[in-house]
Amino acid sequence: MKMAVLGTGMVGRALAGRLTALGHEVVIGTRDVKQTLMRTERGTMELPPYAEWQRANPDVRLVPFSEAGAHGELIVNATAGAVSLATLKMVGAANLAGKVIVDIALPLDFSQGMPPQFLVATTDSLGEQIQCAFPKARVVKTLNTMFCKVMIEPARLPGRHNVFVAGNDADAKKIVKSMLREFGWSEEAIIDLGGIRAARATEMYMELYFTLVGVLDTFDFNIAVVRA
Amino acid sequence: MKMAVLGTGMVGRALAGRLTALGHEVVIGTRDVKQTLMRTERGTMELPPYAEWQRANPDVRLVPFSEAGAHGELIVNATAGAVSLATLKMVGAANLAGKVIVDIALPLDFSQGMPPQFLVATTDSLGEQIQCAFPKARVVKTLNTMFCKVMIEPARLPGRHNVFVAGNDADAKKIVKSMLREFGWSEEAIIDLGGIRAARATEMYMELYFTLVGVLDTFDFNIAVVRA
Repeated sequence: MKMAVLGTGMVGRALAGRLTALGHEVVIGTRDVKQTLMRTERGTMELPPYAEWQRANPDVRLVPFSEAGAHGELIVNATAGAVSLATLKMVGAANLAGKVIVDIALPLDFSQGMPPQFLVATTDSLGEQIQCAFPKARVVKTLNTMFCKVMIEPARLPGRHNVFVAGNDADAKKIVKSMLREFGWSEEAIIDLGGIRAARATEMYMELYFTLVGVLDTFDFNIAVVRA
Repeated sequence: MKMAVLGTGMVGRALAGRLTALGHEVVIGTRDVKQTLMRTERGTMELPPYAEWQRANPDVRLVPFSEAGAHGELIVNATAGAVSLATLKMVGAANLAGKVIVDIALPLDFSQGMPPQFLVATTDSLGEQIQCAFPKARVVKTLNTMFCKVMIEPARLPGRHNVFVAGNDADAKKIVKSMLREFGWSEEAIIDLGGIRAARATEMYMELYFTLVGVLDTFDFNIAVVRA
């Protein structure tokens, strides 16, 4: 499938690399291709410069946001939550119409330290804001409850644990669930929370997630729903 | 231990009954003892009138809030989140000074249907509000992430799953963890999230919890933290 990943950070790279390995035609979108390739500094968590990753992943093309939007039938929003709406505007509403937007972004501000501050109220979510700003796109919130390495390889954690999906379009959710199964998520591990309003549920869980990051001293965990 | 449970609803009854069975001297606090005993209507989820429960649990004395506060060395706040602060004021700051407040209340408004609406912002929590309003009390937020039957009998769910504690006072947390172990929580199942600020983490998780209630069509579940 033709896919575009928005965001050149750790999460975007993890998704783009894995989707390419699975046989999809993947591009990564960025604001300014030249500038992204010219950066030499490391990011947070010792993230190597993009150009270094690009050399190791020559099959993934780096293109401007609008070209990424035109290419992708499925578009993964792996940008920082604070710039997601602005980024999607650069991709262009026309390029997003009818497309599946897999929104894995977090409406969080990490600039004040951990745990991060929320950029949305308890009566809102980034997923809903994106769906509202681009009504012709089919937004599916998913994978935003875990570390990117767990997203693309759930078997790295032992036993049963869960991933959530929320979105208004049933066909879009089918496509996204199929992508999750390609990543290694079993049918039973995928919990459909209903419409895009449920993005609030998984986004607000972030307060617990990042508090646990501090306590467990790792990002490398997930939650399992345990029922009687 | 001398304990007081504030709140005569399903959660308060479950806690009071279990703590009494464990050998603690438990009273339940209410605004007006006579009125509470006179009620004949069933509550939400077909909850029987209090008097019916009282007959089956004669060892639990029903007393006014202030008397409950005077009695309890440990005080469980099982009131509705919307009235928790007002209730604790009726218990009285003097009665709360030095005491352990086990805050299991939810800052949620269920009047608009499910999932409920939050009564606190993403930058606040009921647990913090209570600690702030009663600085001499030692507030520990715990058990608020699950159904009351799971709180008092974790073994009703299969395998490993978790309970969280958050509070500023280390000794108070020790007492609460000991109470949790009496309920059946293993040492490993209890995750200490740190200070009372972390009440935000478990309270905000409620959006996911109640969304899952709708999807799974049961309250009878919990989450397990799964790590590598």
